[in-house]
Amino acid sequence: MAHKVGIVGASGYGGAELVRLLEAHPDLDLEVVAAHSQAGEPVSSLYPNLAGDRVFDEVDLGRLIGLDLVFLATPHGPSLQLGGALRHADTRVVDLSGGFRLTAQDFSSWYGEEHPTPDLTPTPGVATPTGEPDRAVYGLPEMFRDSIRGSSFVANPGCYPTAALLGLAPLAPLLEAGSVVIDGKSGSSGAGRAAADRLHFSHVHGDLTAYGAPAHRHTGEIETWLPGDLGPVSFTPHLIPMSRGLFITGYGSTTDGVGPDEVADALHTAYDDEPFVHVLAAGTFPHTKALAGSNGVQVSAVVDERAGRVLVTCAIDNLGKGAAGQALQNANLMLGLPEQTALSALGVYP
Amino acid sequence: MAHKVGIVGASGYGGAELVRLLEAHPDLDLEVVAAHSQAGEPVSSLYPNLAGDRVFDEVDLGRLIGLDLVFLATPHGPSLQLGGALRHADTRVVDLSGGFRLTAQDFSSWYGEEHPTPDLTPTPGVATPTGEPDRAVYGLPEMFRDSIRGSSFVANPGCYPTAALLGLAPLAPLLEAGSVVIDGKSGSSGAGRAAADRLHFSHVHGDLTAYGAPAHRHTGEIETWLPGDLGPVSFTPHLIPMSRGLFITGYGSTTDGVGPDEVADALHTAYDDEPFVHVLAAGTFPHTKALAGSNGVQVSAVVDERAGRVLVTCAIDNLGKGAAGQALQNANLMLGLPEQTALSALGVYP
Amino acid sequence: MAHKVGIVGASGYGGAELVRLLEAHPDLDLEVVAAHSQAGEPVSSLYPNLAGDRVFDEVDLGRLIGLDLVFLATPHGPSLQLGGALRHADTRVVDLSGGFRLTAQDFSSWYGEEHPTPDLTPTPGVATPTGEPDRAVYGLPEMFRDSIRGSSFVANPGCYPTAALLGLAPLAPLLEAGSVVIDGKSGSSGAGRAAADRLHFSHVHGDLTAYGAPAHRHTGEIETWLPGDLGPVSFTPHLIPMSRGLFITGYGSTTDGVGPDEVADALHTAYDDEPFVHVLAAGTFPHTKALAGSNGVQVSAVVDERAGRVLVTCAIDNLGKGAAGQALQNANLMLGLPEQTALSALGVYP
Amino acid sequence: MAHKVGIVGASGYGGAELVRLLEAHPDLDLEVVAAHSQAGEPVSSLYPNLAGDRVFDEVDLGRLIGLDLVFLATPHGPSLQLGGALRHADTRVVDLSGGFRLTAQDFSSWYGEEHPTPDLTPTPGVATPTGEPDRAVYGLPEMFRDSIRGSSFVANPGCYPTAALLGLAPLAPLLEAGSVVIDGKSGSSGAGRAAADRLHFSHVHGDLTAYGAPAHRHTGEIETWLPGDLGPVSFTPHLIPMSRGLFITGYGSTTDGVGPDEVADALHTAYDDEPFVHVLAAGTFPHTKALAGSNGVQVSAVVDERAGRVLVTCAIDNLGKGAAGQALQNANLMLGLPEQTALSALGVYP
Repeated sequence: MAHKVGIVGASGYGGAELVRLLEAHPDLDLEVVAAHSQAGEPVSSLYPNLAGDRVFDEVDLGRLIGLDLVFLATPHGPSLQLGGALRHADTRVVDLSGGFRLTAQDFSSWYGEEHPTPDLTPTPGVATPTGEPDRAVYGLPEMFRDSIRGSSFVANPGCYPTAALLGLAPLAPLLEAGSVVIDGKSGSSGAGRAAADRLHFSHVHGDLTAYGAPAHRHTGEIETWLPGDLGPVSFTPHLIPMSRGLFITGYGSTTDGVGPDEVADALHTAYDDEPFVHVLAAGTFPHTKALAGSNGVQVSAVVDERAGRVLVTCAIDNLGKGAAGQALQNANLMLGLPEQTALSALGVYP
Repeated sequence: MAHKVGIVGASGYGGAELVRLLEAHPDLDLEVVAAHSQAGEPVSSLYPNLAGDRVFDEVDLGRLIGLDLVFLATPHGPSLQLGGALRHADTRVVDLSGGFRLTAQDFSSWYGEEHPTPDLTPTPGVATPTGEPDRAVYGLPEMFRDSIRGSSFVANPGCYPTAALLGLAPLAPLLEAGSVVIDGKSGSSGAGRAAADRLHFSHVHGDLTAYGAPAHRHTGEIETWLPGDLGPVSFTPHLIPMSRGLFITGYGSTTDGVGPDEVADALHTAYDDEPFVHVLAAGTFPHTKALAGSNGVQVSAVVDERAGRVLVTCAIDNLGKGAAGQALQNANLMLGLPEQTALSALGVYP
Repeated sequence: MAHKVGIVGASGYGGAELVRLLEAHPDLDLEVVAAHSQAGEPVSSLYPNLAGDRVFDEVDLGRLIGLDLVFLATPHGPSLQLGGALRHADTRVVDLSGGFRLTAQDFSSWYGEEHPTPDLTPTPGVATPTGEPDRAVYGLPEMFRDSIRGSSFVANPGCYPTAALLGLAPLAPLLEAGSVVIDGKSGSSGAGRAAADRLHFSHVHGDLTAYGAPAHRHTGEIETWLPGDLGPVSFTPHLIPMSRGLFITGYGSTTDGVGPDEVADALHTAYDDEPFVHVLAAGTFPHTKALAGSNGVQVSAVVDERAGRVLVTCAIDNLGKGAAGQALQNANLMLGLPEQTALSALGVYP
Repeated sequence: MAHKVGIVGASGYGGAELVRLLEAHPDLDLEVVAAHSQAGEPVSSLYPNLAGDRVFDEVDLGRLIGLDLVFLATPHGPSLQLGGALRHADTRVVDLSGGFRLTAQDFSSWYGEEHPTPDLTPTPGVATPTGEPDRAVYGLPEMFRDSIRGSSFVANPGCYPTAALLGLAPLAPLLEAGSVVIDGKSGSSGAGRAAADRLHFSHVHGDLTAYGAPAHRHTGEIETWLPGDLGPVSFTPHLIPMSRGLFITGYGSTTDGVGPDEVADALHTAYDDEPFVHVLAAGTFPHTKALAGSNGVQVSAVVDERAGRVLVTCAIDNLGKGAAGQALQNANLMLGLPEQTALSALGVYP
């Protein structure tokens, strides 16, 4: 029997991508497609790809509580409130916002506000916080699959942290503390749908710029979940003239004795059994477009022996593995469904 | 039990899109992925989205004959030879080339060469040429579904003709002969994969130009399959700085008494039951991107009463409904499978 | 001695392009760079290319009146008021809006409002309305250079009409009435700077759509200035995923005896002495990108003898010859300067 | 009286951009536009922006020797030969290739071949090698203007090194050795005009990837000319889906006591009098598009105090300041002309 699910924040890009994925899911019935400001409007008026008769629903907590699982694709403000209320009612939640990805203390530091429900925030460094069923689990299946399986509350990772962690986590034991630099590149959909001068087609087309450095919130999220004690990382995001796609280029100084074999082994050990992660040969590099519309990941590392560094690159679709795809992967795990249901690792190319 | 299928010309864009679609098809086993010049190369070396271990196969007629159905995604030259040979052996064929879309006489006129097997060419104007089982059926399901169902040999329509016919065919009875103008716009993938100066990213980015007019081969194909006797049409294709997506803008003078209601009725009558075609309200227009990666179609018409013309617009993904998607739709019909298997009408957006 | 000029509406794309061009003009001093809503802001905060210390000025009529020439790059509303006031004070005006391009009657019909100063509207069909010095001259130098030279008030043509008229006007005597179809394609900068959902990079990238048909205001402007009596034209604009560049594809049925020679002769006669217009050989087509940042024009025509039509294509930079470049060309003419001063026909390519 | 100049390699992007710039130069007569493989072809057949009657010339050494200055826009192979021959005849040369940017020893190491004329290679670390008039001067005017003024032979810097050095050189005294990471991003025109599968529009559009790391030749050039003794740098170039534009993001650990003030002072001291370099406020970032078609530079630095690093970003047009613009700037200096002649710092935007 199908599980009943709902989305709040369905008018945003992450929410609308979830609608697209869920329309093809054989075991999940999408019963609520809520969008506060767009309630009553046809979904197709905002998303011309989502042809059909769906209309955005009101955000009705009572109705949401009755579902088997709710995806929160809202900004962190509404997510903090809805996440708490839904968990109070014991409804399963996958939260795509940044509301439950950090400890309460770090949340306060990076978001500039107190966390309203610190007892729901996750416990980093505790690989499988199964003893604390109420706390959010950080929903990166390749790192925390077992915890996600047993959880009713998953904090879906940010887009940049997903790529940064998938690229760097397996290599962390090989790197010197204080040496990590992450140069991020993302398409415009990562900035959300709200019309803004800086996102005007005329301004982004043919342009490249940086933004948000050196204190982008995703920096704290990466530091929180990167294994070991590597210290502060430098993270600089860039806006790339493409709609979808996210790529990180990570740099770290290698500890003594680390060479190409150790690096390759670390990636293959981590990912050879993963259904969505593909390790490329050293010297070849990921292509964001190879993953468009999919939940796939490409990762590659090469050692710069002259400079004593490892260079790791990782690409995802920011709305796929970086948001909606990963959210569905988490939901499949939480509900005991095959992890790959309604997800593909093959992007639409060219 | 699954049907065994193969692709010849899998290194081209249409062929590779078929690989992507067939990897997710529950009832078709993709046994041969042949590409003459790339045999032995990993598929992923040309298509970074198609991760995995597949290697391009040799083109081996004996092996192809043993399959239940072969997709020919080759240029018309090889298709003419392979199509004839496979049909001689009674193997089902969906040919994506222009080799079997015209009568032998028109083929000679538009392609500048004699057709080697005129008895395999289709019979336009005969709605259901079921009495001639050897002849190719023109594979536009929305016009010729019944014939396709009974056929073992389908000529898959060209990308521009697909959009032009889906837009104009229902309106043909309302238009004056000699009045039809079709302005076509296509992304770069429509020009094929071969590297060419005119397809260099530096040249296409930020540019728009026309090409091939006034004697593009698709003109003859449109005239062949457009119902009624509308006479020569003018067709001008344009290269648009996008990778996928095709859009036609059709103009025709309306006959007496034709107004918005007659136009809307014609489209709705034709398409309201079609799973892949969505009729938009007059005054709204299709978006190519809404259909990216899908087999969907958007069509819209509005009457320009001041000028006495109807304006019809139609968008598809040139590699979806314009090539591989439609080929799979035809194969599903030929093999008695549900027509929508492994096909979506929802594009990847944004 | 340099002439003092000013721009009103300098925060829009057309106005800002004028700033860029005027910074390099040896004979014009740009004294006022006014933008109502941005007054006091650094120009570089909106236009990162316009490095330097300029700050947007208030719109101060008294100060404008003292200039030798004022460019109005405002919407037609403010232009109607400012144009009237400046002309009343006998200050030269080049108006880039649609306020003074039509007769008062046509203005009312296409813009849905009464014209406040009908005695300032132009007189179509009167090639050189020099007897009426107060009326606006339609500022297409290739058609009306002599009138512009003697004028103090020029209505700068719209972007689509510029390309449509440059392509079709020389051919008008060869075409049948009622047969003209114009399919227009423009980059996003033609839609202006105001942030809008439909202009979000994520929505335009990889997309093509139509808009505004069949009653776009530029239709009336084209009909007004197209020579002869060709009757209503059908005009459909499309949004192309590029920032700059505009292209029209014009179709018209040829009158008896018109063939390739007559068509080529008409274009060459019109343009061989024109500094900014380049006639391409039949069968080659304009490239918008070849004209990026310039005041150049490419035009080409080919006869479709099978269908009895001529196909004419014309490309410009919508902010160059389609707006600011042409405005400067007009100003050079009005002030008795060499017409090409500070203007180039060579675009930035690739 | 005008100086006579010529270009060899005019069919490449750098050479063609020089043609565009030189057409508007009041003091330089472009007498030779040579392109070995395209000799006899109209320039406009390859560059639709360069309308006019020019035809590519043969490469005729005798004719080149008679010119006042020759721009070599050829690959380094031909440049090594032609550069030597022209210098032997005492003709001024600006070489845009990598042939004369490194010491003979480093050239051998990074290019894998012996340098044929080691006595013509430059002398890094010697700020003004005026005592050796035959040696190439590294043509970065902001670092070596005085040497360029006295030189007859200039090695024009590579595109990435130009941006990397303009960003990092002023900060070098503030950085720890061994800490520098440079993440480079370039549009497709940086890869040259030769048609290649990886540069097909369908593959670059919507895609981002890395290439050439960790041993791209520009690494050696950056290390050669970066002041001080900072040791090996890590450099990773990325291909961005835009045609023009280059951006580097540089990271380096700050030495004790270095904060925002020291960083800002270093940049302002270096560039406040430079006509083409614009220092942005910390926290704002360069836009490549702001510089399109120009010789301008935008540079910005911000201190990441948490991580103890400086983050410096620098943008140029890779064909402007990164190639042809800078070559012309050098030629102006060598010939005693005003440095800014026929060059603009204002890009075409949007």
